[in-house]
Amino acid sequence: MNFYIVRKTLGWIVLFEGLFMLIPLITSIVYWESEFLVFLACMLICAGIGFLLTRGNSKKDTIFAKEGLVIVALSWIIMSLFGALPFIISGVIPNFVDAFFETVSGFTTTGSSILSSEQIEAMPKCIAIWRSFTHWIGGMGVLVFIMAFLPLSGARNMYIMKAESPGPTVGKLVPKVRLTAKILYTIYFLMTLTEFVLLLFGKVSPFEALNIAFSTAGTGGFAIRGDSMASTSAYIQVLVAIFMILFSINFNAYYFIARGRFKEAFFSEVKVFIAIVLLAIAGITLNLCLTGTQGYSVGEAIRHSLFTVSSLISTTGYVTVNYDLWPVFSKAIIIIIMFVGACAGSTGGGIKVSRIILLFKNSKREVGKLVHPNQVKSVMMDKKPVEEDTIRSILAFMVLYIVIFFISFLVVSIDVDSLESAFSAIAATINNVGPGLGMAGPTESFAFFSPLSKLVMCFDMLAGRLELFPMLALFNPYVWKRERVKKQ
Amino acid sequence: MNFYIVRKTLGWIVLFEGLFMLIPLITSIVYWESEFLVFLACMLICAGIGFLLTRGNSKKDTIFAKEGLVIVALSWIIMSLFGALPFIISGVIPNFVDAFFETVSGFTTTGSSILSSEQIEAMPKCIAIWRSFTHWIGGMGVLVFIMAFLPLSGARNMYIMKAESPGPTVGKLVPKVRLTAKILYTIYFLMTLTEFVLLLFGKVSPFEALNIAFSTAGTGGFAIRGDSMASTSAYIQVLVAIFMILFSINFNAYYFIARGRFKEAFFSEVKVFIAIVLLAIAGITLNLCLTGTQGYSVGEAIRHSLFTVSSLISTTGYVTVNYDLWPVFSKAIIIIIMFVGACAGSTGGGIKVSRIILLFKNSKREVGKLVHPNQVKSVMMDKKPVEEDTIRSILAFMVLYIVIFFISFLVVSIDVDSLESAFSAIAATINNVGPGLGMAGPTESFAFFSPLSKLVMCFDMLAGRLELFPMLALFNPYVWKRERVKKQ
Repeated sequence: MNFYIVRKTLGWIVLFEGLFMLIPLITSIVYWESEFLVFLACMLICAGIGFLLTRGNSKKDTIFAKEGLVIVALSWIIMSLFGALPFIISGVIPNFVDAFFETVSGFTTTGSSILSSEQIEAMPKCIAIWRSFTHWIGGMGVLVFIMAFLPLSGARNMYIMKAESPGPTVGKLVPKVRLTAKILYTIYFLMTLTEFVLLLFGKVSPFEALNIAFSTAGTGGFAIRGDSMASTSAYIQVLVAIFMILFSINFNAYYFIARGRFKEAFFSEVKVFIAIVLLAIAGITLNLCLTGTQGYSVGEAIRHSLFTVSSLISTTGYVTVNYDLWPVFSKAIIIIIMFVGACAGSTGGGIKVSRIILLFKNSKREVGKLVHPNQVKSVMMDKKPVEEDTIRSILAFMVLYIVIFFISFLVVSIDVDSLESAFSAIAATINNVGPGLGMAGPTESFAFFSPLSKLVMCFDMLAGRLELFPMLALFNPYVWKRERVKKQ
Repeated sequence: MNFYIVRKTLGWIVLFEGLFMLIPLITSIVYWESEFLVFLACMLICAGIGFLLTRGNSKKDTIFAKEGLVIVALSWIIMSLFGALPFIISGVIPNFVDAFFETVSGFTTTGSSILSSEQIEAMPKCIAIWRSFTHWIGGMGVLVFIMAFLPLSGARNMYIMKAESPGPTVGKLVPKVRLTAKILYTIYFLMTLTEFVLLLFGKVSPFEALNIAFSTAGTGGFAIRGDSMASTSAYIQVLVAIFMILFSINFNAYYFIARGRFKEAFFSEVKVFIAIVLLAIAGITLNLCLTGTQGYSVGEAIRHSLFTVSSLISTTGYVTVNYDLWPVFSKAIIIIIMFVGACAGSTGGGIKVSRIILLFKNSKREVGKLVHPNQVKSVMMDKKPVEEDTIRSILAFMVLYIVIFFISFLVVSIDVDSLESAFSAIAATINNVGPGLGMAGPTESFAFFSPLSKLVMCFDMLAGRLELFPMLALFNPYVWKRERVKKQ
């Protein structure tokens, strides 16, 4: 383990985090809020500690897979620790575990909150924007961001990008990792800007528009209204629903579109994702209309199911209605799409559509092998064979996902009123969705869980966002061994 | 596809099923019940159809993996169709779907019933014994039974045994498959007999003792009392709890014990299984005592948690108390052990302990590979390397299991009052447990599900008992192609 490079990278993370706090600092100046001093203090702390960590120079800047994993895992933990400072110092969330939970929920773009509706509405504007901005930072990945702007060696970048980017494979758009990172951030920035401008047409304040744009772009779900999106206009709701879908499509598609390669933009994952979204909306709309329990008109049923499906499959977690009251069939669809999640290479969470496609195709192959044992076939995706290593890693991912899920489920079940609450709380956090059902439902807050449950859910949110392996690598003793000279 | 051999084997199944009906026939004579005629008619039908199906002779008796899968899947479906006849003809369950559900539930040793407590107590004795006896037949596998007593070719036996036996690998105890089948049935018979005798000491009638012995041995769970096992004595409850555990341990262990090879008898699967059982009992007992919601004494808490854990991890499904009222943590443990299930090579269902051990070990290896990419290691079990093909097939199993689970969950969610009911109904059927929670809970019946849901659960029970692949092979178009001369 190359501890030097880990320390150094963590230092850069802290420095950048201090820089990011400029956004809330400026907000506090604009709105003349006393939390100005809070952010100034936090920035100084970040600058000081970041400076100390980045000190020194060593030739040993080689990094391998394990360093990549550890750097990513620790970066996100450190980032959440420092990101929690403004909440604690300002007194908005004085409890450490709660503040940490809220920040992890922010950076991992989960959007589960321990704040009540009243507390959310009473928050100073600069704290609110910091909360939404954590979504935006976490959405595309802070290390990818740093990579795009710091001159680091190529090999290092690849390992880090592999560990931080969502999805079973890393699609390098262009041969250079750094350039890929820049392209992704450019797309991300432009789409956020577009949404911000379109939101302004919906007669929301620029402040709220910025919050919504940050939160949608990261598919996070923190809102500044106590009722999330319920009291916004139909225009805003439909606009946000569309953008939630857009941000959960693999960004490679946009790159292809920008280059005029429209045919390539609609690869399998994109097509399957859109099909799932349409099916889910149709299923819920029909169920709502046929049972009529909620008394929606057909138009309302379509709008609410469009919004809820977009919000949950993109793992954003915005809410227009309390879907916890919907009929069981609709809730079953909701639970399933929470697990499916968004496309790889997007800002959304969940298991990811491409993983699910590959799992399906692999199972089909295995059943084929049973009836035709001598058949040797590769799993094909978009007319290219998929490496066996990728498939094995996805299968390991699924198993570990289930293991983490059920251990967490067991811990959280001590606190809650029903299995549904426990199950959906873990589903909502590990998939980075935000709200679940029951006690973790859309109108509830996560404040009532025990500190142990909250920490377990913090782990789940980080594990979900980083796709398990970096967080699990921390538990591998081999990772923590000091480097020795190796003979090979 | 060799249709000749499939037809022939199905014919034998039907003939044997007719033979099995001797047990209820004798019961009806002993108790002078008018259903005597019902069973006589059913036996004649079986004999007639069995005779027609087994007619003809052909040299083409070669069978391959696909024939093995199809034979097993169709055998179980045919067996359930004919097994439902006594219920329908006697008028105990006049509805076809209900009778089929009850019979599938019997043969697959699930024990989910569409009968109410009153209906169960009002049943004629010969029908009751047929219901319990289906568990016993299904427990060890009817094809394995036929194999033990019919002279079939060796290769054929292996393919069939592979497809019918539970667990990721088939442990042949002795080189000859047929002898292995005989040994297994001998152990099965002797253990059933032992339980029967010990039950008689508990002052239950011989008729009830026989029912309980059949049902426990197959880890089925159909009872002849309306309250399952709640009104039996503590002696009976503890005795049955112990036998449920014994029948869910890999039978290879008993073979080793019988041969005096005690050390070999405690292989990894057995040790892990026992550890899980003890942990689950300890967890539930503590939870019950600490919360005190049920007002049990410590002794009662231990007895009920022992019984419930034994009943659910062995996937029997007997009930002494309504655990649906237990605290959420206990219910979470219950749900998890329902999925874990028994050992491979036992009569119990679920995912199977050895599969879970291998999934764990494989995931550990994959995480190790991430931090140490050049490492090449086999997964080891009981000091022997496990074939990569076995691991791949287990991983495919898990994925298909999840897919079937969630599709069924979606269908059943249309009928039910809560997600918990839908989730646990599928968990209870696909794992061959019997009762679940909520609407599918221990004091409820499955009568209130729609015919569609019942048929989906029939599929799940069969898929669970046959470990997915045979049932899925039926959907592979290649399987249904006529044989052509092949060049190789």
